[in-house]
Amino acid sequence: MPGFLRVRTLEDARRTLERYWRSRPNAVEVPLDEAGGRVLAEDVTSKVDVPPFDRSAVDGYAVRAADTFGADEKVPIELSCLGSIRAGDYPRLKVGEGQCIEIATGAPMPMGANAVLMVEHAVSQGNVVKIYRAVAPGENVSRQGSEVKRGMKVMLAGERLTPPAIGTLAAVGVKRVKVLKPPRVAVISSGAELAKPGSRLKAGQIYDVNGPAICEAVREHGCEPRYLGIVSDEASKVGVTIKRGLATCDVVIISGGSSAGRGDIVPMVVDGLGRPGLLVHGLAMRPGKPTFLAVVNGKPVFGLPGYPVSALMVFDQLVAPYLRQLAGAPHLRREAVRARLSMKILLARGRRELVPVKLTRKSSELLAEPLLEGSGAITALSMADGYVEVPLEREIVEEGEMVEVMLFGGRRTCLESSR
Amino acid sequence: MPGFLRVRTLEDARRTLERYWRSRPNAVEVPLDEAGGRVLAEDVTSKVDVPPFDRSAVDGYAVRAADTFGADEKVPIELSCLGSIRAGDYPRLKVGEGQCIEIATGAPMPMGANAVLMVEHAVSQGNVVKIYRAVAPGENVSRQGSEVKRGMKVMLAGERLTPPAIGTLAAVGVKRVKVLKPPRVAVISSGAELAKPGSRLKAGQIYDVNGPAICEAVREHGCEPRYLGIVSDEASKVGVTIKRGLATCDVVIISGGSSAGRGDIVPMVVDGLGRPGLLVHGLAMRPGKPTFLAVVNGKPVFGLPGYPVSALMVFDQLVAPYLRQLAGAPHLRREAVRARLSMKILLARGRRELVPVKLTRKSSELLAEPLLEGSGAITALSMADGYVEVPLEREIVEEGEMVEVMLFGGRRTCLESSR
Repeated sequence: MPGFLRVRTLEDARRTLERYWRSRPNAVEVPLDEAGGRVLAEDVTSKVDVPPFDRSAVDGYAVRAADTFGADEKVPIELSCLGSIRAGDYPRLKVGEGQCIEIATGAPMPMGANAVLMVEHAVSQGNVVKIYRAVAPGENVSRQGSEVKRGMKVMLAGERLTPPAIGTLAAVGVKRVKVLKPPRVAVISSGAELAKPGSRLKAGQIYDVNGPAICEAVREHGCEPRYLGIVSDEASKVGVTIKRGLATCDVVIISGGSSAGRGDIVPMVVDGLGRPGLLVHGLAMRPGKPTFLAVVNGKPVFGLPGYPVSALMVFDQLVAPYLRQLAGAPHLRREAVRARLSMKILLARGRRELVPVKLTRKSSELLAEPLLEGSGAITALSMADGYVEVPLEREIVEEGEMVEVMLFGGRRTCLESSR
Repeated sequence: MPGFLRVRTLEDARRTLERYWRSRPNAVEVPLDEAGGRVLAEDVTSKVDVPPFDRSAVDGYAVRAADTFGADEKVPIELSCLGSIRAGDYPRLKVGEGQCIEIATGAPMPMGANAVLMVEHAVSQGNVVKIYRAVAPGENVSRQGSEVKRGMKVMLAGERLTPPAIGTLAAVGVKRVKVLKPPRVAVISSGAELAKPGSRLKAGQIYDVNGPAICEAVREHGCEPRYLGIVSDEASKVGVTIKRGLATCDVVIISGGSSAGRGDIVPMVVDGLGRPGLLVHGLAMRPGKPTFLAVVNGKPVFGLPGYPVSALMVFDQLVAPYLRQLAGAPHLRREAVRARLSMKILLARGRRELVPVKLTRKSSELLAEPLLEGSGAITALSMADGYVEVPLEREIVEEGEMVEVMLFGGRRTCLESSR
């Protein structure tokens, strides 16, 4: 059991995981109206020309261009009008020499005509239309296949289905499309003291905070959480629930029960479930020490700390990037801002420390106020706008020092109004 | 009918709309596990203390602090151990003078004890525990209500329910919560030539692109689209469908059928449906001229151009900000980058022009390549990374000029790897 409490850096932990597991997204076919925001799993080839026929790009008169040559404001040319074609019509009339047909935007071009004169340059008088401008062949006509030719690749696997992408698929007549399947992630909370959200607390119990918070974090990164509930720290129950997670989901996340004190029950149980088992136990990061990482029969199991703030910060650093890869979500670019630290931070040397901060604006300057209420204070984290990362070699960051704050997404901050 | 084809600027159009309509979000109560990502509609007050009892913050021994005074590495003090308390237990034992109880992280403090000595500083020998360090009263104890006091406001209306916010609500025992209700938005496509997505095209038909694309854009901004399908441009059918939208949704969007040529059927119909009716018809913006804006009995009706690229660009500029307000979504901050224009853009003076561009990287420089295939080319828009905005007074932007590109969100661009 090589993984047991030999503290590693985050980078080292990631490398170890990636030696035993590679994220491979799955595909699923969905109707176009459920595909928005998802990622294409296959190239899409058009089975139609777009437009499917020559059509008028304006409201006007379909003409033979040669018939209009020489027309101008002073010397109009008269054409005889055979009728009109509306969008959606199928034209049966044919335009001969000296003839024209009234045509609407989007309507199919009639036989014989090769250009459209805009309505603004013509005057209709009964069956006669006076043309005050010449048009060139092809003018104001959208040619069949000019936007997309049948057989052309219109989108590539890996593209995200934004509104214009959905529009493109609709334009080529796609009804169902293969997209990456949102990975299923089992979320388990371990701890004999935990009570279900909103239940009546018994003596000695607290509410399970990690279950709902991690489920939401999983959702936020494009995956489907499955909350498998609370397990006590009895080995047999932990094992049964993790096995259920492995059987039904692509990834398992369990929080709590991995500190060194009460026994390494959870990591020990996970190590016994299959190969290669426990890979990393202990991160040189605060919060995050009691984190573990395992791979069991090809699926990763992440063990997060029990303290909610620790659990969410480790999730963010270690788990979220893998979930986004699996979901095909774009790599998360964290925005950073520079701010002045409002109070000194003292740290333990030799581990990377992430300190949640709240940003406030003081005249033209941003202040970063550390939220140091201990790693249990989820209420403090919900007020944080981001975090300051202190590298391994620092022990103190002084009040008034300029620091880089990595922003959490999604919150309304004091930055918004000013940008 | 004051609105008919008197071209206005975007800002003027917005001001006019806001004189007759103000976005008022609605609330709905949902279970906590469906509340993620939504916006709180009410303040939340805690009905419990967090923690609900004094609990140990570490694994160790619950002691009377005074009993440990004077203990150090060289002079340990011996205490007699009464037993152990695990997390979730309800302790019945009481710690008297010279006594201690083994206690796990999160377990309730027993009566009599006022501090916890970490397990690292003690050695257990049968019923006797040797203490190698003194602890102060309160040390390693999380006091009842130290994080949240019963009756305290933990979250305010308007806050977005991020994972830590969901954790906070779970911590105070919230089971159901009032959040802003995603507004329902009716999406209608008008045009006799349009065919349902994926259906078999008849002669003269093209697929409805705007319906699916606008539905996805509506969803992207936090609202629920209701696709009411395709209407021909017969006044009676248009009227019936828009009325259905007004009856069942908060906002109606109809695209197509509002250009000046084929008759102003759609805006005319909308103007007759209720007060104040049509407010704006025609935007001094390209794409976007045939846009209209109406308010009918307290609900806005947006009329977008029929050309898909025009429809989506106008949606983005005019409609999206209101939908986000209604949904309580944060104001969209568009990121901008500077890039060198790869070819000259020629424009009509006197209207603001939005030119979709694709970004490419050429050595260290970003190039913006205008996608000028006409406003019908949805496939071009799906390749665009953003747009260049050319103000009213410019007629030409030269090749090689540096321009600001407002980025669309959601696409993978050539920027990602480098930032």
